[in-house]
Amino acid sequence: MPEVGGRGALLRLLRDGRPRTRAELSAETGLARSTVADRVESLLAAGLLRHADKAGSTGGRPPGMFAFNPGARVVLAVDIGATHVKLAVADLGGTIVAERETPLDIAAGPERILDHVSETGPALLTEAGRAAKDLLGVGVGLPGPVEHASGRPVNPPIMPGWNGFDVPGHLRRRLDTALALVDNDVNLMAIGEHRAHWPEAPDLMFVKVATGIGAGLIGDGRLHRGSRGAAGDLGHVRVPHGAEMPCRCGNVGCLEAVASGAAVAAKLTSLGVPARTSADVVDLARGGSVAAIRSLRQAGRDIGEALATAVSLLNPSVIVVGGALSQAGEHLIAGVREIVYQRSLPLATEDLRIVQSRAGARAGVLGAAAMVIDHALSPSRLDTVP
Amino acid sequence: MPEVGGRGALLRLLRDGRPRTRAELSAETGLARSTVADRVESLLAAGLLRHADKAGSTGGRPPGMFAFNPGARVVLAVDIGATHVKLAVADLGGTIVAERETPLDIAAGPERILDHVSETGPALLTEAGRAAKDLLGVGVGLPGPVEHASGRPVNPPIMPGWNGFDVPGHLRRRLDTALALVDNDVNLMAIGEHRAHWPEAPDLMFVKVATGIGAGLIGDGRLHRGSRGAAGDLGHVRVPHGAEMPCRCGNVGCLEAVASGAAVAAKLTSLGVPARTSADVVDLARGGSVAAIRSLRQAGRDIGEALATAVSLLNPSVIVVGGALSQAGEHLIAGVREIVYQRSLPLATEDLRIVQSRAGARAGVLGAAAMVIDHALSPSRLDTVP
Repeated sequence: MPEVGGRGALLRLLRDGRPRTRAELSAETGLARSTVADRVESLLAAGLLRHADKAGSTGGRPPGMFAFNPGARVVLAVDIGATHVKLAVADLGGTIVAERETPLDIAAGPERILDHVSETGPALLTEAGRAAKDLLGVGVGLPGPVEHASGRPVNPPIMPGWNGFDVPGHLRRRLDTALALVDNDVNLMAIGEHRAHWPEAPDLMFVKVATGIGAGLIGDGRLHRGSRGAAGDLGHVRVPHGAEMPCRCGNVGCLEAVASGAAVAAKLTSLGVPARTSADVVDLARGGSVAAIRSLRQAGRDIGEALATAVSLLNPSVIVVGGALSQAGEHLIAGVREIVYQRSLPLATEDLRIVQSRAGARAGVLGAAAMVIDHALSPSRLDTVP
Repeated sequence: MPEVGGRGALLRLLRDGRPRTRAELSAETGLARSTVADRVESLLAAGLLRHADKAGSTGGRPPGMFAFNPGARVVLAVDIGATHVKLAVADLGGTIVAERETPLDIAAGPERILDHVSETGPALLTEAGRAAKDLLGVGVGLPGPVEHASGRPVNPPIMPGWNGFDVPGHLRRRLDTALALVDNDVNLMAIGEHRAHWPEAPDLMFVKVATGIGAGLIGDGRLHRGSRGAAGDLGHVRVPHGAEMPCRCGNVGCLEAVASGAAVAAKLTSLGVPARTSADVVDLARGGSVAAIRSLRQAGRDIGEALATAVSLLNPSVIVVGGALSQAGEHLIAGVREIVYQRSLPLATEDLRIVQSRAGARAGVLGAAAMVIDHALSPSRLDTVP
């Protein structure tokens, strides 16, 4: 096996996009110059680096500058929601180069949904002008708990037929790729939002408010999954206004029972303003329904109660509110801000920003792409695979 | 400057205590054999490694095995509490080799307290049979918020005269050492408990229940400080039973206002059972006071309400309850368990353990020592300092 140790350290630096000389790479990584020279050749051969001379020359005198080559390979990113499947092709810089969304009910089951992915994926690669051999791997987000190591769903409440299904194995075979990773959709949205819009924020919390409520936590730049992968379960935190409201989890007073899209729609319906989904609530609010606007503001306050505790515990610098119900604009977020700033200590909110998702409907695929790219280009992988 | 890159990677492996050959070190780090040979020599010269042959030989045929040498240097660990100062000398394995505790009121101010540290520290080094030149650095825990980068206290409520005081600069001068690090005491207790008793648990939460209430969070084996170093502020989380109880922070319904040692003592006094401190409450409970036992159980339930939210968010594998009020035995922890297991989803509590602190009064100094050792032996430091 050829010596490859150090390739990861070089790429970690160069992924920031700035070209560097061998001497700079040696100084910044602490690797010996001879090692740097050798590993640069290896990464050039793999296509992951390119010559980046001012003159753009690749012949004659040995060129001096090297840069990361994001176009070397592509990844397929898949965001499977309750009622849609979104696919995207992204380069190694995480930039989306082609995408397609199809309405599909998750209850159709894993075979049907993953057939769609393995048929649409190659078509999308072609649309992006890439060959099958350019595919580095596939990343998938699912709307339920996933055991990250195996990529299998664990008792997902809204995904009949998916429990324990070998999603990565199925996709590796169908897409003929060695790398398939699966995670919970909210975790991937947190990664996507962080990479694309808040790369400098070490601590970010992404809150998805849709049919259900969940959170993804980024600490020191990395996703926090918890000991059983169950971290970020904001929906079943008890909130004061929840009182004795029964929740589908079997407990009472959970946030999700009062502030999810489903809960707000049910409340409006009981008030004589019929609504069924988050989208219905958003439409009502946009249409000026006072009942809808009031309900959204109160949902924001309830979410704020749970987030105030999260702020005290975690002291994030950014809270991003996403998901279908957040599309209603400022009503929901105003309620969140009202309670978080009232309930939290000044030091914890001094630099805190509470904002609407900027990645929007693309957060999931951006995160799925980043998960695969990070894994494939990590030092632990690059430095052991020749 | 000599090439030193790779020393950190070697030490990170060898700090587990297992001796290794050069070939093993090369295989496990991915460093070239020539680099390993060179860096091993450098670490031997610095005293951080020792020859570890089966025969214990250091002459004749070149020895083949190398091990971390925890006795190479020592650190001074200082735990400054509201009414005590505890000092300890620890080797590079984090083992305490000498310690001393003195009653001292934090309100005496930084000059007086740090004078005590800089007088007692050298005496304790001598007691441990070590010379001043063996001192690698000093680590200090303070009972209030600390800006970790500068080591200065930030508006600490119970520390008059300490706000913004340059604790590290003062100690570097007095103790003639280049390295002085300061953090909040609960953060250090979390590190100490984790290293000494739960090194295999990636996600641990340490809860200190004393005059106040605070938490230290370990995620993926590392302390989570948050964007302003304010993470772990469990005391000012709102709990249902808190209702409209006023808290010293200016809010109402905070956990600390109902479940801290001070709050429980005040409640008992109002019931005609005089108590002032956490220790008084513990004495009453040990003496069989039904009122004290009931109050502790309820305090545990209130802490459990806040921790249930923390469990949903963070999914830790271990919650350690420490601090003076936890010395009352199982009464407090039984209340915590009751609510956490009732309020949290099964997946999040499947492997969760809620236990009393094992490090006890030593948690702070163990954490202070680990903070300094980790910093000094980190790759980023070892690989840049010749």
